[in-house]
Amino acid sequence: MSAPRPHAGKLLGVGVGPGDPELLTLKAMRALGEADVIAHFAKAGRASHSRAIVARHLRAGVAELPLYYPVTTELPKTCEDYRAAIRDFYDAAAAAIAAELAAGRVVAVICEGDPLFYGSYMHLHMRLAPRFATEIVAGVTGMSGCWSAAGLPIAQGDDVFTVLPATLPEHELARRLGEADAAVVMKVGRHLAKLRRALQVSGRLNRAIYVERGTMAEEKMLPLALKGDDEAPYFAVVLVPGFNKRPGEAPGEAP
Amino acid sequence: MSAPRPHAGKLLGVGVGPGDPELLTLKAMRALGEADVIAHFAKAGRASHSRAIVARHLRAGVAELPLYYPVTTELPKTCEDYRAAIRDFYDAAAAAIAAELAAGRVVAVICEGDPLFYGSYMHLHMRLAPRFATEIVAGVTGMSGCWSAAGLPIAQGDDVFTVLPATLPEHELARRLGEADAAVVMKVGRHLAKLRRALQVSGRLNRAIYVERGTMAEEKMLPLALKGDDEAPYFAVVLVPGFNKRPGEAPGEAP
Repeated sequence: MSAPRPHAGKLLGVGVGPGDPELLTLKAMRALGEADVIAHFAKAGRASHSRAIVARHLRAGVAELPLYYPVTTELPKTCEDYRAAIRDFYDAAAAAIAAELAAGRVVAVICEGDPLFYGSYMHLHMRLAPRFATEIVAGVTGMSGCWSAAGLPIAQGDDVFTVLPATLPEHELARRLGEADAAVVMKVGRHLAKLRRALQVSGRLNRAIYVERGTMAEEKMLPLALKGDDEAPYFAVVLVPGFNKRPGEAPGEAP
Repeated sequence: MSAPRPHAGKLLGVGVGPGDPELLTLKAMRALGEADVIAHFAKAGRASHSRAIVARHLRAGVAELPLYYPVTTELPKTCEDYRAAIRDFYDAAAAAIAAELAAGRVVAVICEGDPLFYGSYMHLHMRLAPRFATEIVAGVTGMSGCWSAAGLPIAQGDDVFTVLPATLPEHELARRLGEADAAVVMKVGRHLAKLRRALQVSGRLNRAIYVERGTMAEEKMLPLALKGDDEAPYFAVVLVPGFNKRPGEAPGEAP
């Protein structure tokens, strides 16, 4: 099967934004209303974050398809067993959705942030988009939610803006932070001490803002230089704004 | 005046998304409903893009404050006259909004995409946020709209993602494209021939997608390698996805 079949269903990758339920788009609302099945990722034994964001908008009795990540904490991420477990998980999740699509149903996979920007959804998309009709509903990204909640102009004019995973080696982080006008560092978690050193070396520590759970009720943000410890959850981010870096400079160009 | 006064108004920076009116958030809808004044940027003599996106949701008779960019096409962007014209424009726009805020009104500045990501709004924000209560409504960015419309997974796992202005020198573009796993190049306009060479040199031309007016009715997208000319409007973007770059590789990690 190489093209969408008549009567086949439709796969919707639906961004539901960074956490604040009001940052859902009208298009995401429509997708929730039209879908026969709502699929969502969650850690085993945990409630799905994306489901919590849309909970108030789900139709009573709509079919749900929870996709539980395998428990892999005991496996090193570089090992083949880990990779195989993740691959098998996405294969099985895609097969479960494919069965719904082949039966003619519309399946909405709800995704925190934007579906195609660092999201698990794209592993399903790669497996299913070649075989089924697919539509993406763009969402507000987690990082937009964070800098908006902080009221922090992030990039302007001809700024170079970079998203970096905190998993990079310290010298790579420092080098890339030094070369960007503005940056967002993701997956901070247990890398915060290393990231702090890289920000110091690159001269960016004094404008770095630490954000936990941006736009959510438990939101927490402060200048990183004022944070007294190096404890951080996996999803914490550090914002390094570009626009404030030249306080004496004239404002940039109009578009 | 150094802190928000009692009875003073409120400034709302409201992202209205990339162009598709359905990509407005519920929070933006609420802001439009609550604002006493809707302010929007536009080129002199042109209709405002952000106003067109929200037109169907404006209350009948709501006050509007159009902010017309000065005509500066005859001035080189490096010259002091140009900078002064732009600075004067933002100063005057901020003063007009400040007068409304001081009178206790809620002013929503509607912004294409996200207000604090390469937007004109932040020039007002820098001038007004120290003096008035301010709230940002995050929006779907133009680039999210583009890769979603293209169905193109852009970045995943530990990818480094970079936004580059096409105004950079060719060797800088090539070097930075070569160092990023995924990239978006903005402000393509008259720089397309140079950008094409930089993509070629960095080995990225074969995965570059050219997008004009993403999510809008006149949307146009094609692999850049298949585009036969180097004509492009100012707001065209080129997407260089990271996630597709390793087709044989195992899928990335779960969060």
